[in-house]
Formats: sequence, structure tokens, C-alpha cells
Amino acid sequence: MLTHVDDKGVKMVDISEKSEVIRVAEAEGYIKLKRETIELIKENKLEKGNVLTTAQIAGIMAVKKTHELIPLCHPLPITSVNIDFEVFEDKIKCICKVKAKYKTGVEMEALAGVSVALLTIWDMVKSVEKKDGYKETEIYGIKIIKKIKM
Amino acid sequence: MLTHVDDKGVKMVDISEKSEVIRVAEAEGYIKLKRETIELIKENKLEKGNVLTTAQIAGIMAVKKTHELIPLCHPLPITSVNIDFEVFEDKIKCICKVKAKYKTGVEMEALAGVSVALLTIWDMVKSVEKKDGYKETEIYGIKIIKKIKM
Amino acid sequence: MLTHVDDKGVKMVDISEKSEVIRVAEAEGYIKLKRETIELIKENKLEKGNVLTTAQIAGIMAVKKTHELIPLCHPLPITSVNIDFEVFEDKIKCICKVKAKYKTGVEMEALAGVSVALLTIWDMVKSVEKKDGYKETEIYGIKIIKKIKM
Amino acid sequence: MLTHVDDKGVKMVDISEKSEVIRVAEAEGYIKLKRETIELIKENKLEKGNVLTTAQIAGIMAVKKTHELIPLCHPLPITSVNIDFEVFEDKIKCICKVKAKYKTGVEMEALAGVSVALLTIWDMVKSVEKKDGYKETEIYGIKIIKKIKM
Amino acid sequence: MLTHVDDKGVKMVDISEKSEVIRVAEAEGYIKLKRETIELIKENKLEKGNVLTTAQIAGIMAVKKTHELIPLCHPLPITSVNIDFEVFEDKIKCICKVKAKYKTGVEMEALAGVSVALLTIWDMVKSVEKKDGYKETEIYGIKIIKKIKM
Amino acid sequence: MLTHVDDKGVKMVDISEKSEVIRVAEAEGYIKLKRETIELIKENKLEKGNVLTTAQIAGIMAVKKTHELIPLCHPLPITSVNIDFEVFEDKIKCICKVKAKYKTGVEMEALAGVSVALLTIWDMVKSVEKKDGYKETEIYGIKIIKKIKM
Repeated sequence: MLTHVDDKGVKMVDISEKSEVIRVAEAEGYIKLKRETIELIKENKLEKGNVLTTAQIAGIMAVKKTHELIPLCHPLPITSVNIDFEVFEDKIKCICKVKAKYKTGVEMEALAGVSVALLTIWDMVKSVEKKDGYKETEIYGIKIIKKIKM
Repeated sequence: MLTHVDDKGVKMVDISEKSEVIRVAEAEGYIKLKRETIELIKENKLEKGNVLTTAQIAGIMAVKKTHELIPLCHPLPITSVNIDFEVFEDKIKCICKVKAKYKTGVEMEALAGVSVALLTIWDMVKSVEKKDGYKETEIYGIKIIKKIKM
Repeated sequence: MLTHVDDKGVKMVDISEKSEVIRVAEAEGYIKLKRETIELIKENKLEKGNVLTTAQIAGIMAVKKTHELIPLCHPLPITSVNIDFEVFEDKIKCICKVKAKYKTGVEMEALAGVSVALLTIWDMVKSVEKKDGYKETEIYGIKIIKKIKM
Repeated sequence: MLTHVDDKGVKMVDISEKSEVIRVAEAEGYIKLKRETIELIKENKLEKGNVLTTAQIAGIMAVKKTHELIPLCHPLPITSVNIDFEVFEDKIKCICKVKAKYKTGVEMEALAGVSVALLTIWDMVKSVEKKDGYKETEIYGIKIIKKIKM
Repeated sequence: MLTHVDDKGVKMVDISEKSEVIRVAEAEGYIKLKRETIELIKENKLEKGNVLTTAQIAGIMAVKKTHELIPLCHPLPITSVNIDFEVFEDKIKCICKVKAKYKTGVEMEALAGVSVALLTIWDMVKSVEKKDGYKETEIYGIKIIKKIKM
Repeated sequence: MLTHVDDKGVKMVDISEKSEVIRVAEAEGYIKLKRETIELIKENKLEKGNVLTTAQIAGIMAVKKTHELIPLCHPLPITSVNIDFEVFEDKIKCICKVKAKYKTGVEMEALAGVSVALLTIWDMVKSVEKKDGYKETEIYGIKIIKKIKM
């Protein structure tokens, strides 16, 4: 009805009639860090403390908040979240797997989990990375690697 | 058990045994604005930017937060939200339609969507309307216009 | 920089350089109810319990959430919220007064407080008002009645 | 996959395949207060106002937020919350009963409701209790008293 | 103005004119657990993972949410949160220290931090403690142990 | 005091004594999309509606929520947020600039704004991108490009 103004506006997709099946989505992403920072993470010597557990918890909590962060996402009864990390010499890979038995897929939830987990890693290692103005620090490679209905 | 104090307190209604059917509710409401403001909205010339899309998004997000705003509302699996506007010479009408397949109606969600969309319009046009202390600005006519079970 | 698309987008106003003074805003609004409902409120006989205290608390909490509800509102250090009601034969008036010592006014906060308090009254009396499909129920007259800098 | 670091991390339990049945949990807890404070509560003479209704509402709202407070709790479609108080000479007992038809129990929700209701009582009576540095004030005896599947 | 109804309602205390000084508060509390559970925590062998870091993070995040949980608490610019645990044979003690440079004390924030940290410990060890219906599990001794202005 | 368990835990950095100066941070990031999707965005023909304004609003709101998403971030009085996009043939660049007069930098806020704006673009174009399982869709290049104290 927005006929008098130059914009179609936005609309939440209607999923009322869709059937509830188990949906799984898996997303991954990376954060590039200094080798020095990676060493400090492995030795758990960073001032703010346990980097990866904090990032995991932040990621899990973000999955549950996806519909509050992304305007047109539906609220979802998340039944499982799994966040894992693989620590390389100069980067950390994060994988987030989400499940729900519901009317719509959970890929945005998995992507939100990865994104916030990686942001949290950044925050935990700020004191070391910021020395040169975050010249090397970078979040990248955020992708969907699996999406299935069961 | 509040027998020693002068107040019955409050109670969330128990909907555990109710059946899940598709519920629809539609609410409407108005904001009265200066003709000058309406012109600026139509021409998209307001400093803060796109008034109606911002109001739409705020309204949709508020629908999803209804149970956090209104103490005794149950959390609901919202499956659809539609917010539309009709722009008149000196007012804007907002209509919010909400759907959920659940145990209780969604009229409070539709009313919350309209209310927050209208508040957001107010915020977006503050710089123009506040010149005379908001003498004419007013939110009114917030009503339920449809409520059905399917 | 949105030069390739047909929309200027939105922008939060920059208040970084504004001075911090005490700001006060007062908003009011009404909800029209059946006389029968008003009687039940006065006698505290509604199934869900204490209507006005619940609405007051919901309104106060909404004031603190204004910047989460309205996209371009700044977070504010609210220092005082006062919500009062005046009960008439067929309507209730709500007044919300908000204070903060900050760089921007608190009128949106006062309006959000009134809106959510009135929505909460509606929710508390739903069982009585919905009998005829909310034919008479209406929220109206939401206005700013005072706005000062001290 | 956290093989390079000294920590197993955390994991949300997968409840995807569990059946949905009605779950009930009841928790209780106490707050110890001065006799003088209890008198003021009974006579509704505290500066901040109605202590128990405020605590009830805060507790109900906290039940709905449990999955945002406790990192590994699943979001739940709460269908009923009941919070009651018993006022003794020098303490108040709070009981919180929660229901949901879902795949996992609601004991954490009931415990969160009791905890936040008791914290809210503390906040409401601060002006009286803090005179001697909260020497006597104490929250204690938070337990699960019932947990059933129906 | 609530003269027509039997209730004074609630009111957020006005702190607009108070001066900003550094405020510190420290709260403590306990959770009673089975010896078996304590062993599993020490060995980090619980299914859900790292109990104490999860509880610490949940407590820190709850401190920041205090004004959303407790209706009449003011939003506060928290500048420091410290949560520590002492693990005994059959209980865990939690201490939460909060700082802010602001117009009002932070004791409710410290108490909220302790409460949510202890609730999170409970949630993390549910699978072991619930075997006998949480007969021994109990949160108790939540108190303010320090409160200073600097 | 976590001496009995194998983990140092986490700690929010104490910024109580830091001086309040204006802090600015700017972050950027990219989302790779199909050329077909970019065309639909430019012509505003996507089913869900206005992609970039929705992403802008989501990003601005996420900036205000940073301390709720990232466990050890302090709550901040954000005074300005600016989110812009540059649309290329097969990607969109997002830039987020944040300001606050406070005791700590705002780089995490700028990074959170970029991340959530890019996630929202993804969500808005899901119907087109998901046809081949999001083979090409990717969020990358999230970096800090400016960070100053004034």
C-alpha cells in the first residue's frame, strides 16, 4: 500500500503453512591473527583469559539471538548448537552447526554463530593485535558448508 | 498465597492444554503529522533517511519482542508479519498483520507492531515536528481490526 | 555512498559534541475501555491480576529499552522514570515522565513508556474486552506534553 | 576439534529427537530481611512501591529470558508461570511454577524465576536494608521442589 | 495520581542530581553439589563442558543486564566485572565484584552476577545432580560483602 | 582464585580510571554475491524488499547491542553510527563508522555493525543465492580501517 512513496518496503516471508522437519545447517569462517597471538591462545596466557571457550559461548548465545539481530528472520526453537575451532599457525577456523525441527532453515543461525564467535576471538586478543593497528587481523571465509532437511 | 499483603499479584494464564491452530490478527493506528513533514517523507528528504522502511523494520522486530515488552504475554513462534502504510495529507496510517500457529491469539503482537512502527515514524521526523514542541504530533486510533482462528 | 541504488538509507544523528544537561520529557496517552472493565480494574478482580502496577512496570522497563526498539535512538543513561494513571469511567489516562542528564532529549523514551504501559493495560483486560472483538478498545491521544532542558 | 588447546569447550545438548510432553517444575527460595522491612512491605509503605507485585512480574519475565541468561539452555515455549510469596516475620518465601510442552525440562526456568524475584525484592527494599550494610539481608534455600513430565 | 485504585504503584528513584563517583560492590554466594559432581568439574569431565568458565561468562553478561532483569534498576556504565570461584568438597563459592563510575551503587549488579553464575553451574551439572531429583542441590548464602564509594 | 581447577577463566578489563575522550573506529567488510542477485538488489526486485536499508538498520542496531553479543565488551554510550555500502558487480562492500565519548575504543562495535549488516544482506537475498546451495556466497575482508582518539 506504499503507493505514495518510492519504496516497496520489507516483508517477513509467511511460513505458516510449512511443515516442521529437522533442519541442519553448518557454517564456517576464519580469523587471521599474528603467530604470536596464536601462541598466547594455545598457552592460555592472554590477559582476558580463555579465548576459545568464551568465543564458543558467545557463538552459541548469538545463534539463539539470530531473530533479534536479523530483521526478517523468524524466531526458531533451536534444538542443538555445536561450535568448534581448529587452530592453525596464523589463523583460527570456526565451524558452527545448528539444528531445529521447524518450518524454515537454520543457515542464518549458523552464520550468526560463526560471526559472533570470530568477533569474540578478536575482542579477546585485542591487546596483542592492536599494537600495529590491526594491520593483519581479518575475519574472512564465512560460508555455508552444509544445509539439509531430514 | 499472598495472604499477608493487600494484593492478589499477577498470573500468566495457563495455555498448556490449548490446541495449536493458525491465528491471525490485524491492528491499525495513525500518526498525525504536519503537511510539511508528509511532503518530506514522500520526497525522502528527511535528515535521518527513509522513514517508512525504518518504521516497518522496527515494527516487525517489535512484533518478535512482544513477550519481552508485555509482562504476561507468552513467547510465540511468529510465522508472518506484514506492516503497511497509507500516506495521507496530514497523517500516516499503519496496518500490522501477524500470524502464528499456536495456542493463543496474536493481537498483542499486532498492536505492539503498530505502536512501535508509529513511534519510529515520530522519531524519524523529530527534527521537523519538534519546531513547535510537537503541538500537532499525535499517535491515535490504535485498534484491532481483525482476529481470526483458522 | 549508496550511489548505485535508489535509496539514501538511514543515519543515526551524531551527538558526540553535544553538552550533557538534564533533559525532561513528559508524554501522555489514553486507552478506551468498557465501563465494566474499568470497574473490574478498580476492584482488582481481573483474572490476570493487578492491571495498573503491571502496566507501570512494563512502561518503566520499556523506557529503558527505547534504543532497542527504535532503530535510530541513542542509548541513554535514564536517571528517572515516573508513570502515573488517572482512571475515568470509560478510559484510563497514562502519563510518563522521563529524565536523563545527556546529550539528547528523552521524548521518544517518554512516548515508548506510555505506549507500552497502555499496551499492557490492554493485555491485562483482554478476557473482558475481547468478548465483542475489541469493538470499543482503542489506544489514542499519545502526545508530548512537556519537554525541557535544565 | 579443539585438539591444539587445553580445553574441551562447551556444547549445547542435542534435543532434536526428544518428544514433546508437558513438563512442570517448581522451585522455591527465600530472602532474609529485617522485621522492620517486612512490616513496611505488608503496609505497602516502601518508597519504591509495591514490592511483591514488582518481584512477581520480574520473576515471570525472567522465566521467559532464561535461555538468554544461561548459555546452554534451549529456548522454550513457556505456557504457564506462577509466582507466589509467603511472608514470614523475618523472611519471604518465593515459589515459582513453570510449565511448557516441550522436549526438555523447565527446572532452570523455575530457578531463574525464583532468583530474579528474590533479587527484585532486595532491590525494592534497599533503602531500609542498606542502613547497616546489608548485614542481615541474604538470599538462600533456592531448590527444586517438584519436577514432573505429564 | 492512582487515587481511584487501591495501590500506590511503583516508582524509579530519581538519581539525576547525584554526583558520579566510583562505586564498588562485592557479592558472594554458594551452590551445594554432590561430591561426585565436584570431582567431575575439577576433572572437566562433564558432558556440557567447562563449568566454571561458562558460569563466569554468564555472570559477567548478567551484570550488564541487571537493569533489564530488575524493573527499577537504572542502566549503568559498568567499568569492571570480576567473577571468581572457590571449589570445596561439596560446594562452590562464587564471588562477584563490580565497579562503575556513576550516580548509584552497583550492589544489585554484583548480586545478579553471583545469582546467574550459580544458576549456570546448576545447569552445567544437571545431568549428574538430577539423578535423585536435585535432593541436595541448593543455591544459598547470597550476600553483599563489600560496598564502597571512592 | 580458581586454584583447584585447570583454567584461569575470563576477566573484563577494568577501565574505571580511564579518561573519557571521543573515540572513532571504522570497519569494512564484503559479501560476495551472484551478478544476478546484485541486479535484483539494484532494481529493488527482491521478494523480501529493500536489501540495503534493512542491512543498514540491522547494522546500526547491532552496534548498540555489541556488549550483549561479545561477553567482555563494556556497555558504551554510542553517539554516532554510520553504515554505508558500495555495490560492485559481484559483491557489496559495507563500511561502518562508530563514535563514542568514552573510556575505551569502539572497534568491536564497528566490527559488529559490519558483520550484522552483511549477515542481513545474506538473509535478504537467500531465495536467489540458495539455489545452488550458497556455493558462491561468502562474507570476507572484515577489517579495522581506522581507529582514532580525539
